[in-house]
Amino acid sequence: MKEELLAIKWDDDKDNVILLDQTKLPNSIEYIRYDSVEGVYDSIKTMVVRGAPAIGVTAGYGMYFAAKKATEASFKEFYMEIEKQGYYLNSSRPTAVNLSWAVNRMLKKAETLKSLPINEIKKALRNEAKIIHEEDIEICKAIGESLLTLLKDGMGILTHCNAGQLATSKYGTATAPMYLAKEKGWNLKIYSDETRPRLQGSTLTALELNMAGIDVTTITDNMAAVVMAQGKIDAVIVGCDRIAANGDTANKIGTYGVSILAKYFKIPMYIAAPTPSIDLNTPTGEDIPIEERDPKEVSCRFGLWTVPKGVKVYNPSFDVTEHENITAIVTEKGIVYPPFKENLEKLLKK
Amino acid sequence: MKEELLAIKWDDDKDNVILLDQTKLPNSIEYIRYDSVEGVYDSIKTMVVRGAPAIGVTAGYGMYFAAKKATEASFKEFYMEIEKQGYYLNSSRPTAVNLSWAVNRMLKKAETLKSLPINEIKKALRNEAKIIHEEDIEICKAIGESLLTLLKDGMGILTHCNAGQLATSKYGTATAPMYLAKEKGWNLKIYSDETRPRLQGSTLTALELNMAGIDVTTITDNMAAVVMAQGKIDAVIVGCDRIAANGDTANKIGTYGVSILAKYFKIPMYIAAPTPSIDLNTPTGEDIPIEERDPKEVSCRFGLWTVPKGVKVYNPSFDVTEHENITAIVTEKGIVYPPFKENLEKLLKK
Repeated sequence: MKEELLAIKWDDDKDNVILLDQTKLPNSIEYIRYDSVEGVYDSIKTMVVRGAPAIGVTAGYGMYFAAKKATEASFKEFYMEIEKQGYYLNSSRPTAVNLSWAVNRMLKKAETLKSLPINEIKKALRNEAKIIHEEDIEICKAIGESLLTLLKDGMGILTHCNAGQLATSKYGTATAPMYLAKEKGWNLKIYSDETRPRLQGSTLTALELNMAGIDVTTITDNMAAVVMAQGKIDAVIVGCDRIAANGDTANKIGTYGVSILAKYFKIPMYIAAPTPSIDLNTPTGEDIPIEERDPKEVSCRFGLWTVPKGVKVYNPSFDVTEHENITAIVTEKGIVYPPFKENLEKLLKK
Repeated sequence: MKEELLAIKWDDDKDNVILLDQTKLPNSIEYIRYDSVEGVYDSIKTMVVRGAPAIGVTAGYGMYFAAKKATEASFKEFYMEIEKQGYYLNSSRPTAVNLSWAVNRMLKKAETLKSLPINEIKKALRNEAKIIHEEDIEICKAIGESLLTLLKDGMGILTHCNAGQLATSKYGTATAPMYLAKEKGWNLKIYSDETRPRLQGSTLTALELNMAGIDVTTITDNMAAVVMAQGKIDAVIVGCDRIAANGDTANKIGTYGVSILAKYFKIPMYIAAPTPSIDLNTPTGEDIPIEERDPKEVSCRFGLWTVPKGVKVYNPSFDVTEHENITAIVTEKGIVYPPFKENLEKLLKK
């Protein structure tokens, strides 16, 4: 590896969490140290850290910082104090499920240890934050190992948006097999859709893979058909935001189009998915609401107006790929093939 | 119409050609007057005027300006002078076929009139330039009228890049039915792919349609699948750069992907094509070379680097849509359906 671009590092000696400032990418690589819950709040709010798993891990450390500073007078007062800081932390990105999940996990851990001296609970919470961090790495690694069984040395892979290391603790989800292949000495050739309007593919995915010494080429979204037709793509691997019970998959806008092209060219389409992304309470993709975002993301992404004033802009931020276009859903618990409705249910019972 | 955005206007009183400065679009609408061959040379060279048909028309006026200034001493000297200016004009954009076509047409016209007094030849060349201009409008209008027979009031149309009025004298090719529908009082709903990397869809197509009071919505290229899936698109209409004998069609990068999506959603795909774009000497799309352009178009389109330094960029400027994905090729001589090989040949014999 040339340089490992990690979103989150833990400094055990200084008791600091070190975050890559993702607001400065791709033009500047800067890290910021945090040692307080207020600092962690800001880092999430201002998007220094982004990506659901990475936000969860960061929040775990934030709760540890809250605990570290809290009173040791009584467990009740200690708990009330960190609970309050948990609400505060949650308010930094109210819709981020992994954030509240991590906060709750830290609070529950404290609760289960209430008979211990508070300074012992603090040590245990420090350890719990590190465990959340390590588990996230393990999940990504497991997804990557499963995906790797579907690939071969020398293959060309197309990915869309950033389901990368920068959105997780390490490896990423869709990018995990790329990092693991590199560790094995394989040469995969990655094509990264730039992913308009926000350009996560060019500014994040291409950046992290290139820094790791992985062969990556940026294309605009509308070039995917050409590279497929030229035989350059052997598999498509993308992440996901939510998978419905029937396998329909919501992911960044453009994924659906890529899935149709992959089907046309008979290229396998793999979804990299930590199991919490699978939502059996959502029957099909039709039940997933599609958020529309600020038209300015399209018309003025670069501080320059590229759509004339007065022209309407449609800016859906996600789309839903029909399960018929998906070859396999790859989780940390293994690979799921169609029929997805039956097999996703089985997987989650494991 | 709110305001007609024409690439080229002829001022009969002042003997000037007035060009829309397309280098300033979409943020500023400015016209520049020209009355010399040197001015016309600059306008083509600096891309004040763009689009093969518009360049041809402008060059016609350029040759008239050359003639107007030329000696009246003898036809031989007069002709040598304008021929020299023709070489000069051709050198402004050496690959533009319409440019040399217009220059040659003006020279041939002079040749056929060599028995007339030179001041009469000059008048005739003025007229010939105006005829080239009018013929271009007629071709676009005829393409539009044929396309209109395939559409209905209220339909949603997706277009890609700019095969618009701005690339021709009036109406454009792919946009011609949109302007004609507006004249009829129809309400078509146009979706315009922004068309990365150069954004001709958002900066040109959306601009000209919006100024004409036509309902237009800009989307990023990767949103085409979603608007099709939502039932918003009843037809795709695009222009073309070259059509091979079997109907395979080279056009702006991204067209091929759109054709695959259209096929998937069973939406007709129409190519708007002046007959000079049909090249029976090119057997299939495989014989059309795909030009690669400067990677900076992708990585630094906005004066801001959006691809990290050191990351490879692939930037093919065209792609080839297989004839199997094309519903009809619509020319000024009528509509051509499959089998294209047979029917294109018949059309050109008309």
